[in-house]
Amino acid sequence: MPGTQARVATVAIAGLGLIGGSLAAALRESGFAARIVGWGRRDTSLRRGVELGVIDAYTLSLEEALAADIFVICTPTLVAADLLQDVLRLTLDSDRPPVITDAASVKGNLQRAALDACDGSFPAHLVLGHPIAGSERSGVDAAQADLYRDHRVILTPQAETDAAALALVRDMWLATGAEVVEMDVARHDAVLAATSHLPHVLAYALVDALARSDASEEIFRFAAGGFRDFTRIASSDPVMWRDIAIANRPALLEAIDQFSAHLGELRAAVETGDADGLHSTFTRAKAARDRFAASLAERGKGSSDAAAVGQPETAKRIQSQE
Amino acid sequence: MPGTQARVATVAIAGLGLIGGSLAAALRESGFAARIVGWGRRDTSLRRGVELGVIDAYTLSLEEALAADIFVICTPTLVAADLLQDVLRLTLDSDRPPVITDAASVKGNLQRAALDACDGSFPAHLVLGHPIAGSERSGVDAAQADLYRDHRVILTPQAETDAAALALVRDMWLATGAEVVEMDVARHDAVLAATSHLPHVLAYALVDALARSDASEEIFRFAAGGFRDFTRIASSDPVMWRDIAIANRPALLEAIDQFSAHLGELRAAVETGDADGLHSTFTRAKAARDRFAASLAERGKGSSDAAAVGQPETAKRIQSQE
Repeated sequence: MPGTQARVATVAIAGLGLIGGSLAAALRESGFAARIVGWGRRDTSLRRGVELGVIDAYTLSLEEALAADIFVICTPTLVAADLLQDVLRLTLDSDRPPVITDAASVKGNLQRAALDACDGSFPAHLVLGHPIAGSERSGVDAAQADLYRDHRVILTPQAETDAAALALVRDMWLATGAEVVEMDVARHDAVLAATSHLPHVLAYALVDALARSDASEEIFRFAAGGFRDFTRIASSDPVMWRDIAIANRPALLEAIDQFSAHLGELRAAVETGDADGLHSTFTRAKAARDRFAASLAERGKGSSDAAAVGQPETAKRIQSQE
Repeated sequence: MPGTQARVATVAIAGLGLIGGSLAAALRESGFAARIVGWGRRDTSLRRGVELGVIDAYTLSLEEALAADIFVICTPTLVAADLLQDVLRLTLDSDRPPVITDAASVKGNLQRAALDACDGSFPAHLVLGHPIAGSERSGVDAAQADLYRDHRVILTPQAETDAAALALVRDMWLATGAEVVEMDVARHDAVLAATSHLPHVLAYALVDALARSDASEEIFRFAAGGFRDFTRIASSDPVMWRDIAIANRPALLEAIDQFSAHLGELRAAVETGDADGLHSTFTRAKAARDRFAASLAERGKGSSDAAAVGQPETAKRIQSQE
């Protein structure tokens, strides 16, 4: 917004892909920071970011990037843990460390990495976070300033987290048009395992099982709409999802086991011809899914498949404290 | 087609919902039969069918309906088995029985019902079939004359099946604009279990597991696009899917068990942190799913998500023998 004073002087974005690039673009547009600087180990996407106007400048020097007010780790999930440890070692003894935050899909592994790097004591200037947004495209060329608008960002502050650091990261995401909510790390990882990581594993497992069966040619020939929707997420990036499965192992195993238990109950109902049991499970599931679709429509997403049934859920917004 | 002689005098449609109503509408439009007659146990949808111009007339008398050239069972799956047995008992000793066919999603249970009703000898005038088409809507008011256009119909003829009866049913479906393919009963039920029945069970199981977990409120609040696609089919009609699960029990159990075995392998890979194993499974699945999406696009469906990769599959058409 022209004429409005920036909230901070500099935000550094580590890893300039879709996520980091879109955050940079959104912050530049909002005027939240006077300067957006990119950091990475190679300059290819960083030079492209400057070309596209996504960032103002870039550096290959981690120390230089850490002179920023906020340093946002936007690298792939497993890379993020190592980078976080490097960054913490470089900033722990600083008088004025940057606020460090991130955008990775899993929080528990980063929490553990942080504790390891800081001798078991969670660093006050670290605010772990996860923007729930994405696109089928990737790379800085896919960056969109509105990627986070009306999307949710989950922050997972600890008891040790500095209140001003938390407020700053919250305001940063609010400036992109996102809603910001807070949750504890374990809850975050469990919720994401249930709603995102497990469905991906199930879709991959189904497609792989069918592709390797001896009827695979006919199976794919006669598959139609329901199969298409169900397996769409099996077209996702195998590298990203391998890393998420590794990073969120405990919560994902728990989610797989809970799912398998329910599938086992359904299998037993099919085997015994328990029509009432099947009907009540399917009815309960349909009701839950219809409520979910209605709430998505209420939030302005997925309107093409919303059924106007049930109570729409209201989003819990945390407004800026300024 | 005006002026063209009809292929048969009368087609009777038993059960006038979306499936039967759309077949009736398509046949009326194509002029395949001089007369389309509806049959049912109650007259509500039948009267509506006449009002809508979907059928020419109706009868509540099964004997009267069986005077048709072709009698098509379009009732819900479990009702179809009982009706089929009644119809076979009424027509087995006839000099000129109608050709009997159906549109149910499962074939094995009907094959068994037919054998039971005919002392173990498959009736020559019965041609079991399954049009792979549908809509989220239901009932005769949802009937569309183009529901089957460019869709596939699977016929499952037996050794005993009269060749002229088979040709007639094939031509009937061709007149609706569908493609017609043949498959044996067991293969049909296995393919449909894999591509349709199992995905529905998995989606129902996932949504039910999440709805009953203690984090359910947050789970549905934070679920987004991937979850929406994956669970769309959990909004399907619980009665219809209960009946399909009961009717296709053997093939569905087999499909569930094959899937569970693959899920178990993936679980083990997650547990041991087997990055390479996860990556190859996910890569293989993505490749298969991308080929599937490309072939859907080639066939003119689902173009919104097709990736232009892989070899498109060509549909195997069986043309009219006239």
